[in-house]
Amino acid sequence: MELLEKRILSDGVVLPGNVLKVGSFLNQQIDVELLALLGGEIARLFRESRVTKVLTIEASGIALAAFAAAELRVPVVFAKKTPSSNQSSEVFRTPIVSYTHKNTYMAAVAKEYLSASDRVLIVDDFLATGEALEGLIRITEEAGAFLAGCAVAVEKGFQGGGDSLRRRGIRVEALALIDRMTDREIVFRHEKV
Amino acid sequence: MELLEKRILSDGVVLPGNVLKVGSFLNQQIDVELLALLGGEIARLFRESRVTKVLTIEASGIALAAFAAAELRVPVVFAKKTPSSNQSSEVFRTPIVSYTHKNTYMAAVAKEYLSASDRVLIVDDFLATGEALEGLIRITEEAGAFLAGCAVAVEKGFQGGGDSLRRRGIRVEALALIDRMTDREIVFRHEKV
Repeated sequence: MELLEKRILSDGVVLPGNVLKVGSFLNQQIDVELLALLGGEIARLFRESRVTKVLTIEASGIALAAFAAAELRVPVVFAKKTPSSNQSSEVFRTPIVSYTHKNTYMAAVAKEYLSASDRVLIVDDFLATGEALEGLIRITEEAGAFLAGCAVAVEKGFQGGGDSLRRRGIRVEALALIDRMTDREIVFRHEKV
Repeated sequence: MELLEKRILSDGVVLPGNVLKVGSFLNQQIDVELLALLGGEIARLFRESRVTKVLTIEASGIALAAFAAAELRVPVVFAKKTPSSNQSSEVFRTPIVSYTHKNTYMAAVAKEYLSASDRVLIVDDFLATGEALEGLIRITEEAGAFLAGCAVAVEKGFQGGGDSLRRRGIRVEALALIDRMTDREIVFRHEKV
């Protein structure tokens, strides 16, 4: 999506450790006008998938998920990052390794909000190694729901998470897919037409 | 707001310990159509306040804040709940006591996203004892920004946080203000016309 690529080029900052800082518009300060357009594009991409729930994880994916869900006219469910690991029969729960924070947390969704009759679209702001999406996919599978696919605003393609999911036949859409980046340039991957 | 009051009466569940569970539509599963309407109502209430930023705190306030900000055509900034308390000169940071979780966490906003020229509307899903709003107000004051007011979806009036803020002259708008609740009834407060 050219609009997002241009914004990354103008306002994104590449920091050491493969970090792309886009806090000024995507995930600490939110340019809601931009995110509404991104959400609309995600809805357009999955318009034919008969999605019944948009699933995301707190916190920075929520706004994008909400705008996509508003266009698709379905609810958003967000997984909570829970401090404890105590098992409960009332939640779907899975451990997720955080690449950013170098730790493991538990993600949990109350069972009442996800069921075998759901067709799930997973939405997040970022896709890098794919740990968060993998966790949300495990929760979707545990619920017995159908996975329509995953959509993210920004994919750092060189970290491999997205392609690993695609190789397993999962539909993954990135509105901006970065092939490589340095503090001097950011190169996007575009599908061959 | 009658729409929200009706939804609370039909789908809200009062649990022991003054807990109102509205996870099915407000803060774990999000009814985006409802939240878009609530956000629109918040924008209407503050239309004359020349708001430049909507400030909220992760995670469950983000969707409502985003819909309100979309109507007001201003960015959302959300405070992060940070695990550590190390001081940084680059963030506004304040401790917040969590009534729900019985602990204290640090809330932080990067200084680059809030400045003395901002007119801030604070948005959250819930207002009970007011600790979260008080923290966001401290951050707003630390930034030297003007506080236009606070807006929440649900205020539990009997816990006193909202009235305490109002007594200090702060504008606080609750789309549903609960005066008292038991497992048998929920009674809303309405302003005398």
